[in-house]
Amino acid sequence: MRTVASRVEARVLALLDAETERWGRLDPSLVEPLDAVRALVLAGGKRLRPVFCHWGFVAGGGDVDDVRWVDAGAAFEMLQAFALIHDDVMDGSATRRGAPAVHRRFDRRHHAAGWSGESRRFGEGVAILAGDLALVYSDLLLPGAPPELWTLWHELRIELNIGQYLDLAGTATGGIGRQGARRIARMKSGRYTIERPLQVGALLAGAATLADRLGAYGDPLGEAFQLRDDVLGVYGDAERTGKPVGDDLREGKPTLLLAVAAERADAEGRALLARVGGELDDALVGELQELLRTTGALDEVEAEITALHARAVGALDQLDLTAEATAALRELADFVVARDA
Amino acid sequence: MRTVASRVEARVLALLDAETERWGRLDPSLVEPLDAVRALVLAGGKRLRPVFCHWGFVAGGGDVDDVRWVDAGAAFEMLQAFALIHDDVMDGSATRRGAPAVHRRFDRRHHAAGWSGESRRFGEGVAILAGDLALVYSDLLLPGAPPELWTLWHELRIELNIGQYLDLAGTATGGIGRQGARRIARMKSGRYTIERPLQVGALLAGAATLADRLGAYGDPLGEAFQLRDDVLGVYGDAERTGKPVGDDLREGKPTLLLAVAAERADAEGRALLARVGGELDDALVGELQELLRTTGALDEVEAEITALHARAVGALDQLDLTAEATAALRELADFVVARDA
Repeated sequence: MRTVASRVEARVLALLDAETERWGRLDPSLVEPLDAVRALVLAGGKRLRPVFCHWGFVAGGGDVDDVRWVDAGAAFEMLQAFALIHDDVMDGSATRRGAPAVHRRFDRRHHAAGWSGESRRFGEGVAILAGDLALVYSDLLLPGAPPELWTLWHELRIELNIGQYLDLAGTATGGIGRQGARRIARMKSGRYTIERPLQVGALLAGAATLADRLGAYGDPLGEAFQLRDDVLGVYGDAERTGKPVGDDLREGKPTLLLAVAAERADAEGRALLARVGGELDDALVGELQELLRTTGALDEVEAEITALHARAVGALDQLDLTAEATAALRELADFVVARDA
Repeated sequence: MRTVASRVEARVLALLDAETERWGRLDPSLVEPLDAVRALVLAGGKRLRPVFCHWGFVAGGGDVDDVRWVDAGAAFEMLQAFALIHDDVMDGSATRRGAPAVHRRFDRRHHAAGWSGESRRFGEGVAILAGDLALVYSDLLLPGAPPELWTLWHELRIELNIGQYLDLAGTATGGIGRQGARRIARMKSGRYTIERPLQVGALLAGAATLADRLGAYGDPLGEAFQLRDDVLGVYGDAERTGKPVGDDLREGKPTLLLAVAAERADAEGRALLARVGGELDDALVGELQELLRTTGALDEVEAEITALHARAVGALDQLDLTAEATAALRELADFVVARDA
């Protein structure tokens, strides 16, 4: 997993270095947005999408020395940079990977320099552009690809944006229920984190049938990934997640955890849940954490994660992969549900 | 020009209709952002990029009945929708093509429905996503393309974003001078409106050498296009441009017009120019319009447009195209500099 990550990082950085060099020569101010993308990529992340892409490729019979999986992994990492930069604007998040979000960084830059116009608009404008650039770079990194790979690539990017819209609209309207919350979990990140990277890897290796069949493992595990993310968004250690504790509660994210709690809470609990999405001090975050425990919502979501994990691992046995690929995907399934960041 | 436009519009709408249908079935709320993209495309626009793409294709020997130029033209029109939606957020523009900008439309929707969170953030979030979707759809429309076409496509999208960043940074810092203003004009819209669409058309027709040579016509005409846009941004009729009179002055756009005026103005004029980018009532807009005239800045920019137009038309004679293509590109050059919208 570490080798995959370092090869993909090197590919992303080689592109960003070359771009920073050529545009910086045109105008030195262009270094700043490219540096912001670079800093975000370097600040970490689990490189899960490249890792799944790698194993889809290897499972499909691809040669591990072939650089195409590295390029495709780098394309996923750049796509993730795009998604995070834009998401943080949409959610008004101040922090990402333990550092100020891109829009905040340029908001401060504008304010400190005393430039004209509104600092917030400038910061968000630069973040929109930095994200747009990352989206174009992700396309550019995708290796010369057969038509069915492009079709899948377009589809996964449409799904990602559609999922984000459902998340945004669900945050605004509230009350989307269990089914709505689960749909968002699958659409906004589940598919795009696990199933789609696996399939991109398999298609690159020319294994179209396997690509289809990998859904039986990737689809449930993708949902488990997002449900774990939702739990970490409420209970996660800020040092490990790079986001303040309870950020999802402040932002009012429409998660399964909250949907279940809303069903199970009494009148007092529902009054507390109505505070979600507003200003929350640490004491209120603590009360909400407690409510999600006492209503049994946390246990129910944990049980769901366990069930989804079991379904994914069970599907592995039907896939008839090499012992090495099966072992790697089983280990990844364990990591995805047990992670603390 | 009208046939090109209507064929390209039909292609764009066929895609958006199909997407609205399939996502609306998943969740009715998904119809709204797709409708917003559709409304923006239908609200007009000159379809200049598809027209230049068409003539690049025909000049390169492509068959006019080949649908690939229609697909590529539709890709450009969708890319333009992406650029306009994101630009309006970055510039804080309220109006586009005579209707509320996408971010304003969803800001109002949020406010009227009394949803939770901040209406501005919701409106801008939806606009970011609608633009992101339009960017992905533009890729999807680009026909199965040779590698050199993808390379050009990536490059033109990078240029567009780089140009926008220079525009945003120049608006914030001010004082970028003539050279900076001209660079922005070329990068943010000149190339992407004329030279690049011509070249995409020529490459689609397999005419790589012609694609290179078309720059001699497209590059100066592209800059003339943006300089005309800058003049319309100050003096244009709101009914025709779909933007309020003087919008560029309120937004503090770093144009050649303002750079020249800043050089030529006396102390009183410079004091007036310092108001650009702030709150401006109609009287102040009128004074600024007058100042740009009396300093000779308007005349100088008009002379520059005439010179760029002459350079473009002169280059046409060296290109050795068919009489039909030469006549069409000459007519387009006239239109680009003489237009009032």
